[in-house]
Amino acid sequence: MSRIPRIVILGAGYGGIVTAIRLQKELNYNEADVTLVNKHDYHYITTHLHMPAAGTDNPENARVNILKLIDEFKIDFVKSTVVQIRQQEKKVILEEGTLSYDYLVIGLGGEPETFGIPGLKEYALGIRSINSVRFIREHIEYQFAKFKREPNRLDYLTFVVGGAGFTGIEFVGELADRIPELCKEFDVDPSLVKIYNIEAAPTALPGFDPELVEYAMNVLKNKGVTFKIATAIKECTPEGVSLATGEEIKAATVIWTGGIRGNHMLEEAGFETMRGRIKVDETLRAPGHDNVYVLGDCSIVMSPEGRPYPPTAQISMQQADVCAANLVAQIRGTELKSFEYKPKGTVASLGRGEAIGIVGTRKIKGGAAAAMKKIIDLRYLFIIGGIPLVLKKGKF
Amino acid sequence: MSRIPRIVILGAGYGGIVTAIRLQKELNYNEADVTLVNKHDYHYITTHLHMPAAGTDNPENARVNILKLIDEFKIDFVKSTVVQIRQQEKKVILEEGTLSYDYLVIGLGGEPETFGIPGLKEYALGIRSINSVRFIREHIEYQFAKFKREPNRLDYLTFVVGGAGFTGIEFVGELADRIPELCKEFDVDPSLVKIYNIEAAPTALPGFDPELVEYAMNVLKNKGVTFKIATAIKECTPEGVSLATGEEIKAATVIWTGGIRGNHMLEEAGFETMRGRIKVDETLRAPGHDNVYVLGDCSIVMSPEGRPYPPTAQISMQQADVCAANLVAQIRGTELKSFEYKPKGTVASLGRGEAIGIVGTRKIKGGAAAAMKKIIDLRYLFIIGGIPLVLKKGKF
Repeated sequence: MSRIPRIVILGAGYGGIVTAIRLQKELNYNEADVTLVNKHDYHYITTHLHMPAAGTDNPENARVNILKLIDEFKIDFVKSTVVQIRQQEKKVILEEGTLSYDYLVIGLGGEPETFGIPGLKEYALGIRSINSVRFIREHIEYQFAKFKREPNRLDYLTFVVGGAGFTGIEFVGELADRIPELCKEFDVDPSLVKIYNIEAAPTALPGFDPELVEYAMNVLKNKGVTFKIATAIKECTPEGVSLATGEEIKAATVIWTGGIRGNHMLEEAGFETMRGRIKVDETLRAPGHDNVYVLGDCSIVMSPEGRPYPPTAQISMQQADVCAANLVAQIRGTELKSFEYKPKGTVASLGRGEAIGIVGTRKIKGGAAAAMKKIIDLRYLFIIGGIPLVLKKGKF
Repeated sequence: MSRIPRIVILGAGYGGIVTAIRLQKELNYNEADVTLVNKHDYHYITTHLHMPAAGTDNPENARVNILKLIDEFKIDFVKSTVVQIRQQEKKVILEEGTLSYDYLVIGLGGEPETFGIPGLKEYALGIRSINSVRFIREHIEYQFAKFKREPNRLDYLTFVVGGAGFTGIEFVGELADRIPELCKEFDVDPSLVKIYNIEAAPTALPGFDPELVEYAMNVLKNKGVTFKIATAIKECTPEGVSLATGEEIKAATVIWTGGIRGNHMLEEAGFETMRGRIKVDETLRAPGHDNVYVLGDCSIVMSPEGRPYPPTAQISMQQADVCAANLVAQIRGTELKSFEYKPKGTVASLGRGEAIGIVGTRKIKGGAAAAMKKIIDLRYLFIIGGIPLVLKKGKF
């Protein structure tokens, strides 16, 4: 290779943006050309989307202009949607144009996993982008306005959240905080509003400490959330949901948070996938492709117990560190690192001033956990944008 | 009559609320029982509704709690909807209960006049209450959110305002101010948004000074409004409007401001009506009914030239003064006054910092007219609620 190698990063989510930021710091001038491709000209903070979706925070606090995060003299940015990966030709087809690569980083994010439940794809809303959360916020407000015109339509005031995992729990916490404000704004009797959180697994927040799960459910029940745990959604229709128990819930708003699968382009590109994800090797590369790194929701990393780690912002950022180091090593011909996930803890917010979490081996809850959640959010802003970004977006 | 007479006021619009406030001042203890009936527990400032409808002001600034305006020790307030007036029995049927009266004041407001244009009643929105303007605001915001999911649906960004009278013109002025904010909030290209103001009459603001009308249209055109004057709407459908010219405009939002007729209950009660309104005598009573006063949109007052005055807040308030004085005179057996409308001037706002108007015989426009508009709004707050209300709601 006489010309300098070209690295193309697909997606500016947690994995992609942190890889780009690390590469711009590590790579010397003329060691490589780096191009970051993203659908929008902003990066969004997925773990914060439950707040603007419920309307408890401005969506602007959940996104950052990409050109504020990368140095355009060091990294090219292309705003376009990826259509196809042609790995044999080492090309990426974009909606506007094509890009050739020597090294590819796939951080395209996931797609909603609906487990084949009929109607979810068509009628349920997903908390997955700035556009989608603005839509959810407006949709919710519109239901209150519509109810005032048709006061017998209680389905306008009924909100079904499918999935009591992390996103589902954090969203119902915010929604329960927003409801009294909306009731006041639209002169609606709060006792008419219903929030259902429905989960097919035998517990909310599967995998989390049971004592903390109980605490979380009590906090949310006191805010007016009705849980239906170990209850599968059988079908979603324009009128609401039918449950496996035979119960029907009429609801004009159904929000599905039940899971994420990988990106459909991976399988189409000929990679071997499991639920749309690529099981990466210890260097984070797709098996058999020594120039393709895969991060975040597109990747599967196995725990020492042989189970896939759940895809989180935390693991994506740790992957990005190793991915960037390995790209530099590969270009310089030095030895690659092995990825090893080091869980630092997890905090789930439950709305204003309430949260639960595990930090190290310590269980925390209530105000202390809410404060910790805020620290984690601010730390992320600091990692990607330093103090200026913390000051600008860190008000939440 | 041995017991003290009972006055029932139907409706707490401009006419009803000002009559109530005047009566509570003028009547001595035990001269009469006064009961005010209104659908909501608040009075709203109809002339201000175009702002919350466009989303440029909070709807709270357009309404006032009735119990802040009247003294409950002097006037009874019943929150209920009037269903029927039984004039022969001197009874009013409410949704919850009935009321007997000796004197009746009808200030029930008007209903949209759609001139039989098919589909307007079903598919067009009206700027006529707090509930309706909150609905319009949410509907508009929702269209922007929907457009981001279906970017080929330009009808989501097309707004048709039917009628270029006072309300239509004031509303498009506000909407044109709001659009750039919405475009920024939802990342929408402003050049995709269209506002049409369609008027069947040969001019916008019929009856207004032609030079000022031209000024107003230029201000609004520069803000991006497209006028179609002398163009009738033939039909309104869920997809938009068809014009008499054969043109079709696809629009997800159609707002009808084309006119007001009287209340359907008046004709049902056996009064003689013209377009649902009662042509009152010079004492403001329904002809042949010496105990029934009719105010505002329910009434017709003829000008010396023999043409009905347009129904405005200004004429309603002047009517209320005379109505209250005549009720007091009737109870005391003194002579009744004749109503004579004294037009004090008219100002139409055109959005932020722009307006046109006639004050006395002087034409005003631009910033001076906008300032005058604000003074008129504040003066009204002062009339109904004194300085405290001016301080509380007068921020607009």
